[in-house]
Amino acid sequence: MSDRSFVVTPWEVKGEVDYEKLVEEFGVQPIDEELEEKLRKYMGGQLHMQIRRRVFFSHRDLDWILDSYESGEKFFLYTGRGPSGHTHIGHIIPWIFTKDLQRYFDVEVYFQLTDDEKFLVKPDLSLEDTISYAYDNSLDVIACGFEKGKTWLFLDTEYIKTLYSIAVRIAKHLTFSTVKAVFGFTSSTNIGVIFFPAVQAAPCFLPSILKGRNIPCLIPAAIDQDPYWRGVARAVAPKLGFYKPAQIHCKFLPGLGRGGKMSASQPETAIFTTDKPEVAEAKIMQAYTGGQPTVREQKAKGGNPDVCPVYQYYLFLFETDDAKLRERYLNCRSGSLLCGDCKETLAKRVSSFLKDHQKRRMEARNMLEDFILRD
Amino acid sequence: MSDRSFVVTPWEVKGEVDYEKLVEEFGVQPIDEELEEKLRKYMGGQLHMQIRRRVFFSHRDLDWILDSYESGEKFFLYTGRGPSGHTHIGHIIPWIFTKDLQRYFDVEVYFQLTDDEKFLVKPDLSLEDTISYAYDNSLDVIACGFEKGKTWLFLDTEYIKTLYSIAVRIAKHLTFSTVKAVFGFTSSTNIGVIFFPAVQAAPCFLPSILKGRNIPCLIPAAIDQDPYWRGVARAVAPKLGFYKPAQIHCKFLPGLGRGGKMSASQPETAIFTTDKPEVAEAKIMQAYTGGQPTVREQKAKGGNPDVCPVYQYYLFLFETDDAKLRERYLNCRSGSLLCGDCKETLAKRVSSFLKDHQKRRMEARNMLEDFILRD
Repeated sequence: MSDRSFVVTPWEVKGEVDYEKLVEEFGVQPIDEELEEKLRKYMGGQLHMQIRRRVFFSHRDLDWILDSYESGEKFFLYTGRGPSGHTHIGHIIPWIFTKDLQRYFDVEVYFQLTDDEKFLVKPDLSLEDTISYAYDNSLDVIACGFEKGKTWLFLDTEYIKTLYSIAVRIAKHLTFSTVKAVFGFTSSTNIGVIFFPAVQAAPCFLPSILKGRNIPCLIPAAIDQDPYWRGVARAVAPKLGFYKPAQIHCKFLPGLGRGGKMSASQPETAIFTTDKPEVAEAKIMQAYTGGQPTVREQKAKGGNPDVCPVYQYYLFLFETDDAKLRERYLNCRSGSLLCGDCKETLAKRVSSFLKDHQKRRMEARNMLEDFILRD
Repeated sequence: MSDRSFVVTPWEVKGEVDYEKLVEEFGVQPIDEELEEKLRKYMGGQLHMQIRRRVFFSHRDLDWILDSYESGEKFFLYTGRGPSGHTHIGHIIPWIFTKDLQRYFDVEVYFQLTDDEKFLVKPDLSLEDTISYAYDNSLDVIACGFEKGKTWLFLDTEYIKTLYSIAVRIAKHLTFSTVKAVFGFTSSTNIGVIFFPAVQAAPCFLPSILKGRNIPCLIPAAIDQDPYWRGVARAVAPKLGFYKPAQIHCKFLPGLGRGGKMSASQPETAIFTTDKPEVAEAKIMQAYTGGQPTVREQKAKGGNPDVCPVYQYYLFLFETDDAKLRERYLNCRSGSLLCGDCKETLAKRVSSFLKDHQKRRMEARNMLEDFILRD
C-alpha cells in the first residue's frame, strides 16, 4: 500500500479511497447492468437509490444469490456493527439499505454487535463500555425500521454459546499464518483479536445451523469488512459444508472535515444519532465544502461537488430525487448555488431526519427484547 | 530439550520424566517439611498418601493458600480434564486427591471439561465427540466422591457465556509472542488453539467474579499443565486485580508398557474406568515389569520396583498401607516376590476398584444435573 494515498482495512480507513482500485485489489465484482436488471425487478421497477448512486457498488456472488432466490431458495441478510461509540449517520446508510433489502425480498436479518472485538482492539474501552454501546447502537438499528420477528440482533458476549461452537469449527481450519496474511496481524497482536475472525465469520453459517439446512447468506456491509468474508468465511465454508457467503459492498460516507470517512474519533466531523438537532446543524454549518474561499469567487468559478462532503450527504441520503440532486450538482458547478445556502438546506434535512430517528429510537427501547437474541 | 530423554508439555509427555529437573526448569517449589507440617494439621494428623509418596510433589504459593486459610480466607479448588477419550486410572489419581482436599478444607471445587480444546487439537475428533466424552468423563469425576452442592463441573462449550467474558479480559493482555514462548505455538497453529489458553485460565478467576470478591484459587493438576498457570493465569492475574492462582503438581501414573505415562493412545497399556474388570485384569497380567526374564533369575537377583509400572500402581493407589508397600518393595528387590504373584494381587485390587467405581459411575448418571454448571 506504499504507492497510494489511502488505506482500507477493518480497523482503519484513511485518505481518499479509490473504490475502483479496491474492486481490483480485493477481487470483487462491480455491479453491472445485467445484475442491475435482475435487482430492478425486486426493487419495484426502480433500483434502490444506494445502488443507482453507487453507494453500494460491488459484490461477490450476488448473481448467484438472486438466481437461487429466483428458483425458490431464500437467503438471509447478515450485517453488524462494532460498538465502540455512538452511532453516526455513516453507520446508518448501509442499515437503511439492508432494511430495504429485507422488505424487497422478505428475508431474515441477522445483526451482530461485536462488543468483544471492540473491547479487544480498543485499549481504553472496558467490556462494560462496549456492551453499553451495543445496546445503545441497537436502538438505532431498530429505529431504521427492520421487521420485527424477522430481524435478530445479538451481542457476541451474550450469544457466544451459540456462536462459539461455530467459531471453533471455523478456527480449526485457520492458522495464524492465514489470519496474519489476511489481517496483517503481528506477534504483538493479542490472542483475542487473533481468534475474533472466527467469531465474525460464525453468523454466516448460523441460520443454516439453527434451521438444519443450508441457507444462502448475503452480507451488505462497507468494503473494509471484505477480508473477513474473503479470507475467512468464504475460505472455510466449503470445508464445513456450507455455502460461501455472498456480499454487497458500500462506500464510506465522508466526514464533514477534509477527506476520510466519517469517524467517531473526530466528533466534530460526524453527525451522531444522539446529537441534538441543533448541534448537528451547527456541525454542518461548519463543514468543509468544495466551494471557493469567497462568494465572489464561487459565483465566478463555481464549486466542486465531487470533493464536497456536504454534496455527498445529499447523494448518500438527504436528496432522494435524482433530478434535484443533479440540479444541485450543476448549480454548484455553475456557481449559482452558494455553500451557505446548500449547507443550510442540508442542516434542516439532517435536523428533521434526526428528530424522526430519535423519536423511533425512543420507541425502540420498548422493542429491544423483541429483537435481541440471547443464548 | 535436546540434551534429555523426556518431554513434558500440555500436549505431550514422553520418556522417563525427571521430576527434580522439572521442578528446577519450571521454577516451582518442592513440598518441604515445613509445608508438610502445615498440611498434616488439616489432614487429620497424617499426610495424604499422595503427598507422603510424592505423587503430589511440588507447588506454587501453597504456603500462602494455607496461611490465608488459617487466617479465615477460604480458597477454592480448580482442576479439569481434556475429554479426548474415556477416563483411565491415571486421570483419576489427582481427582481422588482433589476430592480429599475438598473434604479436608471444606471448599468448593470447579472442574473444567475442555471439549473445545480437544476438538481444536485433535484432527479426528468432532465437537460432538468431545462433548460426548465430556459427559462420559463427568461420570468418573462424580464417582470419585466429590461433594454435591460444592462441586461444579462445566463444559467449555456449554458454559462459554460466563467463561468468554473472562477469557477476553485475559486475552487482551496476551500477545501471540507470549503464547508462542509459553506453549511453543507456530504460524501453523490454528487460531482456536491460540486463543484457548485464555479459556483455560478463566476459571482461576471465575468464583471471584461470581461472588464479587477475591477468592484464592488452588489448582491440583499434573505438572504438564503448569505453563497455563505460570505463563497465562499468574502473569495476567495482577493486571485484572485478582490473586495469582496457587498450584500443587502431581506426577504421571506410568503406563503398563515400557516407560512413559499412561496414555489413551496405547489402550493396551492403560486401564480405563469403562474397561470390564476381566479386561483390566488381563492388561495387568500382560504388563511390563521390573522383573528378571526368568523365575530363576528373579529369585537369584531380585527385581527392580523403581522401573516397574506394577509397583507404581501400588504406590499411586492400590496399596494404602505404607508398611505393606515397603514390604512389597523389599520382597521384590530380594527376589522373594515373583512378578506373576505381584501382578495377580494388583489385578484383583484393580478389578475390585473398577467394580466399585463402575457402580458409583452408574449412580452418577442420576446426579449429573446436580453437578453440571450451564449458562
